[in-house]
Amino acid sequence: MIASYQKQCQARVDAALENLLQPPRSELARLYQAMRYSVVNGGKRVRPLLVYAACEALGGTAQQAEGAACAVELIHAYSLVHDDLPAMDDDDLRRGQPTTHKAFDEACAILAGDGLQALAFEVLADARYSPQSAELRLEMSRTLARAAGPAGMVGGQAIDLESVGRRLDQQALETMHRHKTGALIEASVRLGALASGKADADALGALATYAQAIGLAFQVQDDILDVESDTATLGKTQGKDQANDKPTYPALLGLEAAKAYALELRDQALAALAAFGAGAEPLRALARYIVERRH
Amino acid sequence: MIASYQKQCQARVDAALENLLQPPRSELARLYQAMRYSVVNGGKRVRPLLVYAACEALGGTAQQAEGAACAVELIHAYSLVHDDLPAMDDDDLRRGQPTTHKAFDEACAILAGDGLQALAFEVLADARYSPQSAELRLEMSRTLARAAGPAGMVGGQAIDLESVGRRLDQQALETMHRHKTGALIEASVRLGALASGKADADALGALATYAQAIGLAFQVQDDILDVESDTATLGKTQGKDQANDKPTYPALLGLEAAKAYALELRDQALAALAAFGAGAEPLRALARYIVERRH
Repeated sequence: MIASYQKQCQARVDAALENLLQPPRSELARLYQAMRYSVVNGGKRVRPLLVYAACEALGGTAQQAEGAACAVELIHAYSLVHDDLPAMDDDDLRRGQPTTHKAFDEACAILAGDGLQALAFEVLADARYSPQSAELRLEMSRTLARAAGPAGMVGGQAIDLESVGRRLDQQALETMHRHKTGALIEASVRLGALASGKADADALGALATYAQAIGLAFQVQDDILDVESDTATLGKTQGKDQANDKPTYPALLGLEAAKAYALELRDQALAALAAFGAGAEPLRALARYIVERRH
Repeated sequence: MIASYQKQCQARVDAALENLLQPPRSELARLYQAMRYSVVNGGKRVRPLLVYAACEALGGTAQQAEGAACAVELIHAYSLVHDDLPAMDDDDLRRGQPTTHKAFDEACAILAGDGLQALAFEVLADARYSPQSAELRLEMSRTLARAAGPAGMVGGQAIDLESVGRRLDQQALETMHRHKTGALIEASVRLGALASGKADADALGALATYAQAIGLAFQVQDDILDVESDTATLGKTQGKDQANDKPTYPALLGLEAAKAYALELRDQALAALAAFGAGAEPLRALARYIVERRH
């Protein structure tokens, strides 16, 4: 069930993103080409899926969620482009393809990332993509800015870079992941809920609990896959975390305990949705998928 | 007169920026330190000054302009940090101090820039800094996103990098500058006008004409100073544009014609403000200052 729902969300958001990434003039062709290359790449669109699914869980429509779905993916895409840079993680491959600075050049990759971030905020401020009231859109913009910024995703990446080669305890590791990947996942769910126009404080609270649990589960499972999978299945270099001496859950807890922890987080996520009806099925299916996926 | 007005704007925006750049937790101390280093550096705050002055020209208060003044400076600061990177302009000095990637490291500079951009949009979405109606703040956010993004400032930097070593005609050079520096200058004026809550279409149109003229004048004068001034006065490496074979107005038009062009643009800017009263004096003074400054 999640596979077909995922394909549907992917098709929707990919069409909207294609539309957003048309160069407005010929001088900007190469920059937009690099931005498109960084975004239109067969990605699974987990964050847009969360936006659509959270919107739907509260009775909203996919149309209402469109702008927010694009915005979170633009932020995610920019973060990958910058994370892959030589000065950061120095990765040559992403989803089996050359990373943006390899396919273009480093300067172009820096600028493409910068441009994608600005575009994310433009989409939320544009009534054509985000049909909510000005109050709601402003709250969506604030949510995304906080999650993407130095107290969120960017801060997580900074903590991550500083922690290479250091032994983190579980609390420090979770602080890092809550910022680096958790903040944007949580924002995706919140943006979807806000986009429905029907979010009250209780629903937002329950969805935040859900999002925090799956965000962490996603990371724990990623660490497990880095140990267990191979480069072809992952589409990126296997064992890279270990090689870089990055702190991971399997290294910290042991592989079996890490697997048990991922399942526990899935159950926490499902419990947070107990009061939600059938509209929340995609969110539930995603919580299960995250700990079952092989790549 | 412009010197004391500039000092006043600088003090206001610097205090607000200091406040924004406090690390929310100890793990983020180094990232915030790099962000502060990139922002709190004795900069002239030309863009915040434009925000305050445009707001005042329409009868608004400095308090109303505060959030927008911070936002444009955060965008400007991030763009300098990224432009200075080795893969871009590869500059070691900025205002006589080591650039951010020299004072910290390259990864930290990339992240500090990314974080500053997100913070700019957070400030506009935050009612504590921007007290306008949701509709106005959303329009301000859209204005900033368009100006900062791939169809604005980032696009200008991309065009600039691609034009190194090529001979541009005047139209191509102006297209580059209209994007690279003009877009954010125009946005600063528009944000100030919107922040006043009193901007009508006529005022916005006249201010856009003013902003386009001073944006270009600023660039022409920068090119002239790169030829005429010395490294100590500029606080950056003199003659760098020539050394890098960058297209400049003196190279294109000759030095004397470039100077005449700067004065012509100043006069265009002043003419656009003809219908404005005494409240627009700071904007007028700035237009004069831009072509008279020695650094």
